[in-house]
Amino acid sequence: MTALDTAVPLRAAPPELISELEGLLGERLSTASAVREQHGRDESYHTPAAPDAVAFCRTTEEVAAVVKACAARKVPVIPFGTGTSLEGHVAALQGGVCIDVSQMKEVLAVRAEDMDVTVQAGVTRKQLNEYLRDTGLFFPIDPGADASIGGMASTRASGTNAVRYGTMREAVLGLTVVLADGRVIRTSRRARKSSAGYDLTRLFVGSEGTLGVVTEVTLRLHGIPEAVMAAVCPFPGVAEAVNTVITTIQAGVPIARIEFLDEAQIAAVNAYSKTDYAEVPTLFFEFHGSETGVREQVEMVQSIASEFGGTDFQWARSEEERSRLWHARHNAYYAGISMRPGCKAFSSDVCVPISRLADCIVETKADLDGTTMFTPIVGHVGDGNFHVLFVFDPDNAEEIAEAKRLNARIVERALAMDGTCTGEHGVGHGKMAYLEAEHGPDMLDVMASIKRALDPENIMNPGKIVRV
Amino acid sequence: MTALDTAVPLRAAPPELISELEGLLGERLSTASAVREQHGRDESYHTPAAPDAVAFCRTTEEVAAVVKACAARKVPVIPFGTGTSLEGHVAALQGGVCIDVSQMKEVLAVRAEDMDVTVQAGVTRKQLNEYLRDTGLFFPIDPGADASIGGMASTRASGTNAVRYGTMREAVLGLTVVLADGRVIRTSRRARKSSAGYDLTRLFVGSEGTLGVVTEVTLRLHGIPEAVMAAVCPFPGVAEAVNTVITTIQAGVPIARIEFLDEAQIAAVNAYSKTDYAEVPTLFFEFHGSETGVREQVEMVQSIASEFGGTDFQWARSEEERSRLWHARHNAYYAGISMRPGCKAFSSDVCVPISRLADCIVETKADLDGTTMFTPIVGHVGDGNFHVLFVFDPDNAEEIAEAKRLNARIVERALAMDGTCTGEHGVGHGKMAYLEAEHGPDMLDVMASIKRALDPENIMNPGKIVRV
Repeated sequence: MTALDTAVPLRAAPPELISELEGLLGERLSTASAVREQHGRDESYHTPAAPDAVAFCRTTEEVAAVVKACAARKVPVIPFGTGTSLEGHVAALQGGVCIDVSQMKEVLAVRAEDMDVTVQAGVTRKQLNEYLRDTGLFFPIDPGADASIGGMASTRASGTNAVRYGTMREAVLGLTVVLADGRVIRTSRRARKSSAGYDLTRLFVGSEGTLGVVTEVTLRLHGIPEAVMAAVCPFPGVAEAVNTVITTIQAGVPIARIEFLDEAQIAAVNAYSKTDYAEVPTLFFEFHGSETGVREQVEMVQSIASEFGGTDFQWARSEEERSRLWHARHNAYYAGISMRPGCKAFSSDVCVPISRLADCIVETKADLDGTTMFTPIVGHVGDGNFHVLFVFDPDNAEEIAEAKRLNARIVERALAMDGTCTGEHGVGHGKMAYLEAEHGPDMLDVMASIKRALDPENIMNPGKIVRV
Repeated sequence: MTALDTAVPLRAAPPELISELEGLLGERLSTASAVREQHGRDESYHTPAAPDAVAFCRTTEEVAAVVKACAARKVPVIPFGTGTSLEGHVAALQGGVCIDVSQMKEVLAVRAEDMDVTVQAGVTRKQLNEYLRDTGLFFPIDPGADASIGGMASTRASGTNAVRYGTMREAVLGLTVVLADGRVIRTSRRARKSSAGYDLTRLFVGSEGTLGVVTEVTLRLHGIPEAVMAAVCPFPGVAEAVNTVITTIQAGVPIARIEFLDEAQIAAVNAYSKTDYAEVPTLFFEFHGSETGVREQVEMVQSIASEFGGTDFQWARSEEERSRLWHARHNAYYAGISMRPGCKAFSSDVCVPISRLADCIVETKADLDGTTMFTPIVGHVGDGNFHVLFVFDPDNAEEIAEAKRLNARIVERALAMDGTCTGEHGVGHGKMAYLEAEHGPDMLDVMASIKRALDPENIMNPGKIVRV
């Protein structure tokens, strides 16, 4: 839907750079067109843009060597994890070399006594949790897709557990980053807090590869809770479900997950995951804590929900039942798309202060009335974050225009409510116009000056987040 | 103790700048020597350096006007909150104009339903909590001193409650900042999470006025817990007390405060606050939660403590008893100094991964054996952070040299344990050498490039954090 900016000059990798990289990586440097094409595309509707070559690095040193070689020729460098981003983050808009970290799969150190872990950037969240299985610890951040930890750090990802455990902003203790000139820095030591200068960890978290390539990540872990309970509860209406969320958060219940699915999304989930939930606005809950702590939380939330007509809690107590429930929730995106075969989808990602959430969703649903598209809503509502999935026919220009218009309205509404245009997907090149609307020219100017300071030749994932 | 660098050129405010500022602020621009001297000094032992004038601003617009006037003449700008920093943060090392925010005292908006608040930078933490008294909400960050919120944001302060509620890094939702050229930015909207570009909020938190002047702060608040209990428990030795802390944190107990005071510190507290605690290594605890939650936490911690010989818990149940207990703890610094009348003090501030904390404190105490100084230890040990207070005779060159040597050893040890030279006090000009040891030249180079990008004329609190 977003056409590529043809005014941007290509800075293609010249043959001598390709040879040099082949000398470094051997067969792990690929120029095969299938490989290149796969690496210019994420899960979004944005027009893909293939890099000139893909470098499958295995160590920080290899990444540094590739970046140095590219920097010497002012050729762009685009990092690639699992390609599950949603705003064209990996598109090689000006050509260049893609650094694929999927072979950087080592868990470098688990320090159970400090509840932290250091991994290479290509380790995915599921692999990490599999690795941690016997330690009594887990990594809670769960954006749905089995994304790489490096990619999650780079987009400041969050997902279903953020309401209790925070986002990648809180989870990352420190990063190893290859800078635009190939130097390697470690942004922080492992102390839980520090006042030692500028917070470069938080600067690189969410910078989407535009300031450097994340090669290693040190993460906080959490103890696996003694007790876990999950539940699904239908509500008479959208406002009732969302007001249950708002009241729960305001009451300070330390809920782990609280997810909203509207009736359209539930219908899609039922069809896709063979479930039989009532096709009405619904909340998915998960409670973590001690046995008595969970019992207390459950009682409070049941009492709140019942005030809003939510009484029919369906409980998932065993790990298997819970896993089925969250599997259905995680497949909401694919379920949505599958409702209109041949169609494409894109997702809005606004996040608003919790007090405005019910208004924001109700007004948004009114906007969606009468569209020919399929537009289910799903949200990490405990954070004030929700997604409208626009499932549109890519051959129908009217639908495309309508999706754009509706999405712009949603962003405008969220900004008017002092919210953000992106709660967790990031900016990529798909949301750059909204970033300007959100922050204004002076903020963007500050961001651009930081970009220029750290990447004076604009080779790090150029054309993303901010124009320089 | 740290002599001022006489090689640094002064950039004094010229008379026409003073006149211009008087035109802007009238009597709120002071050049009286008593006022200037007070504003060049914090609570540290560092040599003070008075600014040329002090501008008592009342609004963001006034701060912007003062910064613009100074920028036009390349005159330094030094922000000043309550002067309670500890590393010479407010010293006008190159002359210039101090911006005193103590008249910026307005609470601009309390949004109870979103659990956040926006304040002007000069509001202190106690004033804020007083203001919030009837809302059921509170601001938990408590560095001891009644610091200004702007100053706390600028040094990334934390203190006794950080183990549960985090530091200013987590507490700040957004800032209004006057940039080095007088432009005003708002770093973030009020959504709880966002992936909308570079995290400028976290960049300015902890930047100590070197990138801009913080004029307004939006903070997360927390619900006042249903139940609060505090306790003091003596231990047979330092290792036993610290291992109780480590085990408590590793067990995931959501304790609100867990503070360590060694026998010397307890003796000083008893003398200063007229308490009668046993003069042995001691922990101060506070538990927040529901009635049953607090009971559960208390049972777990008592059981852990008893394994390490800590059985004699003294409980403070009423608000009055708790307030007496924490008052004694908060006055630890003044209590320490008062043990040697006429002496000065400075405080180390290392923070290490929790697994190394017992070794770090025990080895540090061995270093302190035999010194003629008074050197009590107090710590926010739940975070891995502790302070040695060096109470030294300012006329005794040997003590001064010894304090420097011992402090350097503590920092070296903490860095070797993958810790930080400053958990919460910040860098100022007192810890710049340690910052280099901690981060290495490439990290400092990145920090310097950010500083140059945002403050090309180096007028924002120059000579602090990083050299440019």
